[in-house]
Amino acid sequence: MNIGANLGNLQRINLEIDLWNNMKAVRIINKKLVIEETEKPIPKDDEVLIKVKAAGLNRADIAQKNGLYPPPPGASEILGLECSGIIEAVGTKVTSKKPGDEVIALLAGGGYAEYVACPEFHAIKKPISIDWFDAASIPEVYATCWLNLFIEASMQAGDKVVFHAGASGIGTAGVQLAKAFGCESFVSAGSKEKIDFCLNLGASSGEIRSEDIFTKIQAWAPQGVDIILDPVGANYFEKNLSVLGMEGRLVIIGLMGGAQSNINLGHLMIKRQRVIGSTIRARSKEIKNEVMKALEDKVLPLFDSGVLKPIVHQVLPLSDCTKAHEIMESNENIGKIILNLE
Amino acid sequence: MNIGANLGNLQRINLEIDLWNNMKAVRIINKKLVIEETEKPIPKDDEVLIKVKAAGLNRADIAQKNGLYPPPPGASEILGLECSGIIEAVGTKVTSKKPGDEVIALLAGGGYAEYVACPEFHAIKKPISIDWFDAASIPEVYATCWLNLFIEASMQAGDKVVFHAGASGIGTAGVQLAKAFGCESFVSAGSKEKIDFCLNLGASSGEIRSEDIFTKIQAWAPQGVDIILDPVGANYFEKNLSVLGMEGRLVIIGLMGGAQSNINLGHLMIKRQRVIGSTIRARSKEIKNEVMKALEDKVLPLFDSGVLKPIVHQVLPLSDCTKAHEIMESNENIGKIILNLE
Repeated sequence: MNIGANLGNLQRINLEIDLWNNMKAVRIINKKLVIEETEKPIPKDDEVLIKVKAAGLNRADIAQKNGLYPPPPGASEILGLECSGIIEAVGTKVTSKKPGDEVIALLAGGGYAEYVACPEFHAIKKPISIDWFDAASIPEVYATCWLNLFIEASMQAGDKVVFHAGASGIGTAGVQLAKAFGCESFVSAGSKEKIDFCLNLGASSGEIRSEDIFTKIQAWAPQGVDIILDPVGANYFEKNLSVLGMEGRLVIIGLMGGAQSNINLGHLMIKRQRVIGSTIRARSKEIKNEVMKALEDKVLPLFDSGVLKPIVHQVLPLSDCTKAHEIMESNENIGKIILNLE
Repeated sequence: MNIGANLGNLQRINLEIDLWNNMKAVRIINKKLVIEETEKPIPKDDEVLIKVKAAGLNRADIAQKNGLYPPPPGASEILGLECSGIIEAVGTKVTSKKPGDEVIALLAGGGYAEYVACPEFHAIKKPISIDWFDAASIPEVYATCWLNLFIEASMQAGDKVVFHAGASGIGTAGVQLAKAFGCESFVSAGSKEKIDFCLNLGASSGEIRSEDIFTKIQAWAPQGVDIILDPVGANYFEKNLSVLGMEGRLVIIGLMGGAQSNINLGHLMIKRQRVIGSTIRARSKEIKNEVMKALEDKVLPLFDSGVLKPIVHQVLPLSDCTKAHEIMESNENIGKIILNLE
């Protein structure tokens, strides 16, 4: 018996399993992005494993790269909050998906990789009429908009809504959603080109970012607006409240302009306003299930019917992930930046 | 024909109609309460006219007396936000009430008077087991608690709730409601006697008002509380937010400690907290309908079953309305002060 030959076979098989179980993924080393081989994730009982076709960039990725936004407990250390792809395998308790299904998915992390695992209901059926890159631009911004506009701020037809950073991924999604659901929207953005882009998407009015923006909002909505979706925070806080009308809702989703502000509780009380702090990534699996179900039922059909359009600024190969981050950091993009993993 | 005699009869009839149409009511003259004869209100098509048996005092009455809280447009200038009484007449479109019905009512004003008119659905059936004075103590505080705890702050069984001014009308109602609906409550109040009273009503813990109260709340609820119902405002604002847990709701219902504060939007966002400004008096007829329906269906039966107890500090005749205000202004009362109009 040739024991040596058998051991050689076993080693070869182990090596092959190792190769099968490995994948390319983006890791953060000293605040830089590095592509490395790492282990493929193993889906839990209630998870699906997705072969990633494309992954969307989000501003939170930059904060995470810089050490300012650690992943929530249990989430992948790999960057990436959304992807499109094909189901490769499913956990033992998964009932809604099967290998081969084409999906888009909201992720707590792990999208900048060849494979990612996520709870089955966080992956929903990809709209058939759009490609993998456009598809990857949808989950995070539409989930964020749905959660904050419809669930947190109870948006209803007829509401007047302000989107600061109107040409961002969230802004371009929000303007389109507001229009599709019978609401009027106003935007601020960094350039005339971005404002024009938002107006073409359906915003009623827009103004280049300056002190003047709040005077303009007051003129556009003399009775006050109903909802403000705000990634700025402190710098805009008191002025946001001053242009918010009776029972208006200010949803804070970012702090690009700082965290520490003043507040007049008298105005807040008499106007019965709400200030709502909101993030999506660390939410419970259940609320994400609810949001993704709403997207699948009420939003994705609007892509196939042409009411909503994915707004993709640029698609870059995974190997250009550092350049992709630089584009986002320069604030030059209108809409989403996408990594190609095909 | 004796024209003179006929004119005399007509004058007498007019005088009698005048007397029938008059009533005693409390008016505000130079920030003092004065009882005067005034015209009985005429119910509109969708209103009921109530012969008032008893009227509850509220802290807002003091603000209104001092010129700091004018009645909302269309509301009576007469003080009084709640009463018990008997339906005397109904408007042409009223379907839910008839003369003779015994009711309690939430009012936008007008309760310190022999008669008051209000929308039909703001008056609900008086619990049969309690007297007119106890009944008059219910509408404003229970409507305020229902609106703010269940509608604004989405209170659910298991929630931990803080009531500042726990021995106030709203506090004593809130502590009992929280217990009845499976929640735990913590109170602050001005004396040991008041704290003990709240503990007897079902509060889990309480502490005399001081800087120390927030250290105590932190110890009682190390993971943070879910809801704070706060009549204090600025003085407590930042500390309230610091003891509020993940997805906690701070409902501002008063400004006894000022209006101008600081806010850290970073904590608000990461903890996904909400700050909600709330008043009840100027709300729409529809939301008040919804609140009073909920009280009638879900809360008033708990008075008849003995789960909830009206907390009345003192009943005074209408002629002692000034003294009644002095008792409230001294903050000595535990529970409600009631005016007797029988």
